[in-house]
Amino acid sequence: MIQHYRHTGPFALELGGCLPQLDIAYHTYGRLNGRRDNVVWVCHALTANSDVADWWPHTVEQGCFLDPERWFVVCANILGSHYGTTGPLSENPATGEPYYGSFPAFTIRDMVKAHRVLADALGIEGIHALVGSSVGGFQAIEWAVQQPGRFRRLVLIATDAKASPWTIAIDETQRMAIEADPTYGEPRPDAGMAGLAAARAIGLLTYRGGEGYNLTQADDDTPHPLPRQKHRPCSYQQYQGTKLTSRYNAYSYMAILDAFDTHNAGRGRGGLDRALGSIKADTIVIGITTDMIFTPREMRLLCSRIPGARYEEIESDFGHDGFLVEHRRLNEILTAFI
Amino acid sequence: MIQHYRHTGPFALELGGCLPQLDIAYHTYGRLNGRRDNVVWVCHALTANSDVADWWPHTVEQGCFLDPERWFVVCANILGSHYGTTGPLSENPATGEPYYGSFPAFTIRDMVKAHRVLADALGIEGIHALVGSSVGGFQAIEWAVQQPGRFRRLVLIATDAKASPWTIAIDETQRMAIEADPTYGEPRPDAGMAGLAAARAIGLLTYRGGEGYNLTQADDDTPHPLPRQKHRPCSYQQYQGTKLTSRYNAYSYMAILDAFDTHNAGRGRGGLDRALGSIKADTIVIGITTDMIFTPREMRLLCSRIPGARYEEIESDFGHDGFLVEHRRLNEILTAFI
Repeated sequence: MIQHYRHTGPFALELGGCLPQLDIAYHTYGRLNGRRDNVVWVCHALTANSDVADWWPHTVEQGCFLDPERWFVVCANILGSHYGTTGPLSENPATGEPYYGSFPAFTIRDMVKAHRVLADALGIEGIHALVGSSVGGFQAIEWAVQQPGRFRRLVLIATDAKASPWTIAIDETQRMAIEADPTYGEPRPDAGMAGLAAARAIGLLTYRGGEGYNLTQADDDTPHPLPRQKHRPCSYQQYQGTKLTSRYNAYSYMAILDAFDTHNAGRGRGGLDRALGSIKADTIVIGITTDMIFTPREMRLLCSRIPGARYEEIESDFGHDGFLVEHRRLNEILTAFI
Repeated sequence: MIQHYRHTGPFALELGGCLPQLDIAYHTYGRLNGRRDNVVWVCHALTANSDVADWWPHTVEQGCFLDPERWFVVCANILGSHYGTTGPLSENPATGEPYYGSFPAFTIRDMVKAHRVLADALGIEGIHALVGSSVGGFQAIEWAVQQPGRFRRLVLIATDAKASPWTIAIDETQRMAIEADPTYGEPRPDAGMAGLAAARAIGLLTYRGGEGYNLTQADDDTPHPLPRQKHRPCSYQQYQGTKLTSRYNAYSYMAILDAFDTHNAGRGRGGLDRALGSIKADTIVIGITTDMIFTPREMRLLCSRIPGARYEEIESDFGHDGFLVEHRRLNEILTAFI
């Protein structure tokens, strides 16, 4: 069930902005035990929400790595998102109107700051395991570097310690698509929807990759050329675009892309080697063979920079989305590890 | 120097449309010899033009594989393009206005039909070598299947015999970006330019790939998070988008993407194996290690379906764009082959 925490008083942001107050939406599963040592904290990715059981099938289940019989699983909706935590559609107390495009810029470090506020408010000190995939992994790495003593285990799936030029170029391309829609900027929640649909379709190309499309979206053979609307990959891209626009807003999407690009766990800390070298948690790094966003090579490099970390690779045809699809393999690896 | 051929009389299109007349812009380099047996015909890709020496550096030069001292090199601007051949910005004789969005839909087979019209008009029968990379390769494969006896050599670089679900998904995503710009559809040559810029940025991601961006677009380390405008990959994507919009139009781009998706050399011919099995030319297939559009695996499969074809692979960090970048290696392979 979704829960809400209100942090009253100003919440200062790394880039200089400030929120007069901060609401955080979160889910918990299972129960905090008497020793308060069974917390597993999950950080979610780009457009997900705090309901892990919803977006990560077959994980928050008995016998799975987020087994609620055993663990007290917590997931907070990220700063700037669409699902209950303060974001661009929230009311700006100064104006009484939603922020929309005037929402102050924030970073991955600000997301982590919000997680820390919530953890403290929930009376959670030590965290048994911190789990993050994709942009969730950005948060997990950042938090593990900020408070190395707080975590016993760290699980990093399909992620990195710094936004690469390649991922920043992907984000910029999505922003260009959103900005090609001139309704983006208008003060309404459904501004920029055609652009957002195109941006999502771009994202999907990179999440899924060639093998994923070729396996699932092949057209049947026909004697005549198909018109655009009849190609399966075309209707799939359109469908995925529309699916996102029916549940999300372009302002949150843009703001989180911007935050993505600021990610660099080594910034102001003497570089990545030094920052990652300070992590104390027992760490596992999991790459996916066909992930084109966070490639196995980059995942192995990340692993090599974290003291004592071990690396596992999941064989999958589904690219970056493999972290959502390959739950059987993830459960095998993580039930033992956590 | 650009030359023009006018085909008067109707030019019927595969999808049922018809052009009342067809202008074809083309370049030639070198001289047709007395035996008329030194023709090398180059098919160009998506947004290129007939000036091979311009878009394919270090190929139309002495000692290179398109040496104009030795070969009579011909390249025709493709149907629907922006560079002199009849396309969406051409005047529709029926209305006296440019076609824009009303340009009739066409296919790769129609592009080849136009090439054949030009070759016949130039008095060229046998063609010593037919060269195509990317969408140029689509045309080359199609032509070699249509007229197996016409070509002695066939050079296929970073291409395929059929548009894959993955490439169709990439095209659809670009169309979504163009259509997110509501000026697309307005009857003017610069309609849809913001969308076209975003579409180009999408294309570029897939042409260049992760390694290409990571090698050339890394930001300098800074103590503070960079704003979007200061990230090198962001300005690169914007620059590339603007660069295309300053030289191309969204209607041609859309129409050629649509044609791309119709590509299937096996359609109506009993499938790919049978169609490709009919090719008589001595064929070389060249893949690029990091090409994510036409992967080495797909290139090897293509090669295996063409009788006697041999396969070469170019080691490159520049993805699909490797065919433009790695001219040294291409010259090594192709000077000997052609």
